[in-house]
Amino acid sequence: MRATIIHGPGDIKVEDRDYPTIKLPTDAVVKVTASCVCGSDLWPYRGIGKNRGARAIGHEFVGVVEEIGAEVTDLAVGDFVIAPFVDSCGKCPQCLNGVTVACDHLTSWGGDDENGHYVEGAQGEAVRVPQADGTLRRVDGVTDPDQALTANLLTLSDVMSTGHHAAVSAQVGPGRTVVVVGDGAVGLCGVLAAKRLGAERIIAMSRHEDRQTLAREFGATDIVAERGDAGVEKVKELLGGVLADSVLECVGTKESMEQALASTRPGGNLGFVGVPAGGAELPIGLLFSKNITVGGGMAPAHTYIPELLADVLAGKINPGRVFDVEMPLEDAAEAYKAMDERRAIKVLLKP
Amino acid sequence: MRATIIHGPGDIKVEDRDYPTIKLPTDAVVKVTASCVCGSDLWPYRGIGKNRGARAIGHEFVGVVEEIGAEVTDLAVGDFVIAPFVDSCGKCPQCLNGVTVACDHLTSWGGDDENGHYVEGAQGEAVRVPQADGTLRRVDGVTDPDQALTANLLTLSDVMSTGHHAAVSAQVGPGRTVVVVGDGAVGLCGVLAAKRLGAERIIAMSRHEDRQTLAREFGATDIVAERGDAGVEKVKELLGGVLADSVLECVGTKESMEQALASTRPGGNLGFVGVPAGGAELPIGLLFSKNITVGGGMAPAHTYIPELLADVLAGKINPGRVFDVEMPLEDAAEAYKAMDERRAIKVLLKP
Repeated sequence: MRATIIHGPGDIKVEDRDYPTIKLPTDAVVKVTASCVCGSDLWPYRGIGKNRGARAIGHEFVGVVEEIGAEVTDLAVGDFVIAPFVDSCGKCPQCLNGVTVACDHLTSWGGDDENGHYVEGAQGEAVRVPQADGTLRRVDGVTDPDQALTANLLTLSDVMSTGHHAAVSAQVGPGRTVVVVGDGAVGLCGVLAAKRLGAERIIAMSRHEDRQTLAREFGATDIVAERGDAGVEKVKELLGGVLADSVLECVGTKESMEQALASTRPGGNLGFVGVPAGGAELPIGLLFSKNITVGGGMAPAHTYIPELLADVLAGKINPGRVFDVEMPLEDAAEAYKAMDERRAIKVLLKP
Repeated sequence: MRATIIHGPGDIKVEDRDYPTIKLPTDAVVKVTASCVCGSDLWPYRGIGKNRGARAIGHEFVGVVEEIGAEVTDLAVGDFVIAPFVDSCGKCPQCLNGVTVACDHLTSWGGDDENGHYVEGAQGEAVRVPQADGTLRRVDGVTDPDQALTANLLTLSDVMSTGHHAAVSAQVGPGRTVVVVGDGAVGLCGVLAAKRLGAERIIAMSRHEDRQTLAREFGATDIVAERGDAGVEKVKELLGGVLADSVLECVGTKESMEQALASTRPGGNLGFVGVPAGGAELPIGLLFSKNITVGGGMAPAHTYIPELLADVLAGKINPGRVFDVEMPLEDAAEAYKAMDERRAIKVLLKP
């Protein structure tokens, strides 16, 4: 089968690999019908962080169950499934607490599982899913979704669940004022999540016209293009002299975290989901004196999928709109390039 | 009148000062009937932080209104009042949000107010209270409280409100498991607050027998004397292999923050109220990967006093038990010494 391999910074190739097979009785093999490139895939692509050598990449996919191990009980061949961006067992205390991303038996796509068996990356034709019952979410009543529904379902794998996590962590709710820092797919999904949770006012910080348009479509009431102190002043002006109740940090850099902290009112809540990179810090003295509560981290997509899926299937939310470009899997290298150069918000890859 | 002055590290003197008078129409003058020494007063006493020169000290008191300015409407001469540990206006957006400690017109005891007028410290015979309507909390039906009630009311000025803030910030509630790091007066009040909020299990980390006894009286179900990794292991063992849902950090040092972070389960909540001193940090990578939410800071005592006062007056809580020593104001130097040497948990000073 064909699979996307990152060899090093800027070096993405689609290559031949063995088709996955069941290794453990708790495995399933899923034929990928859609995958995509994540903003966090751009970190290794740009050479940020440790170079882990050539490896399969991609952690977001939807598809159809092709084969199941003898101990898989909640899935059947032919089921259409959403894979969260990490594997989880569903049985440990962390999973039972809903914090599947801290699962005691956590496995990442494109790495090895606990037993040392290779796990395929999501940007390929098929994947062996360890702990399949604990990991996958079945989409009942769906077998062959059209392009729009496929895109919507695929966002639940990561970006929509992550935007939702930012909003939940920032205590977004009815009557709350919200600032979203970051206009990538996650930030845009954060806007949509804030709207869905009943926020009164949603300010999207964005300097790109196409993203501003989508932010407004998703529920942003205001756009702030300014950054730094000027951005904070603009937020304050829009909110009648006070900063925001809830701020969603959806980037992960030093600058975006500073922007987010400076936009939060005393006693407000900051939800951060941007993978920390480039010196982002949480200054304890500032949090102490301003009584800012900070929460977030990796989103427990597995936990959030049921409620978000219900709204997708009911036609209430269309997070799939973040995919502005679709390409065949073979063009993965170009997909990375388009996202790196900000020519695309998020690229959907069709195997 | 007599007032406590800190001249530098270890140098506490009780001296003569002018009796306060009304300076602004929004002022009140309060005759102090009880004050006390705070754990945070020990920072300058120990020479930690900036030496601000000779100044009046103390920020917790209760007393009787002796005089009011022409614009004071919510208080009358003879009212018994509790003073939160900072002054606040009650009208700015932060006060209206309940975050009185971030008041736009914040004033500290023992400093100057916005108009440059001196404000007395709490460890003295009387205090001019700026923004009196916004700052003070009247205790209806009480004019001359006995020793036990005085002690209870005095804790609402700071330590009980602060312990409550730690518990609220750590999302303590029915069914939650709790670890309290710090066995000073604030930590002990944190135990009481956790009990009051319905926690299922409350583990107090303490190595001092007198404090362990009071922690149990306040509702601690378990005591852990070990620290560091051994302490974390003990917590895990007591909680059946999982760390705590809610952790209250009530010290403010690097070690106590590390202990608190290491005691919080993935997806748990850490409430921190210890004034950060000595390199306490919030490591963003750990919070991200463990999905730990951190909140807290200076407690908005003014906001919390009504609900806590109701429970004090109803005899439901007795936070005043943290005062294990009472001394005349004249012995303030000895009071500091006793607390510094941990011979006292908290000393009440009677002018």
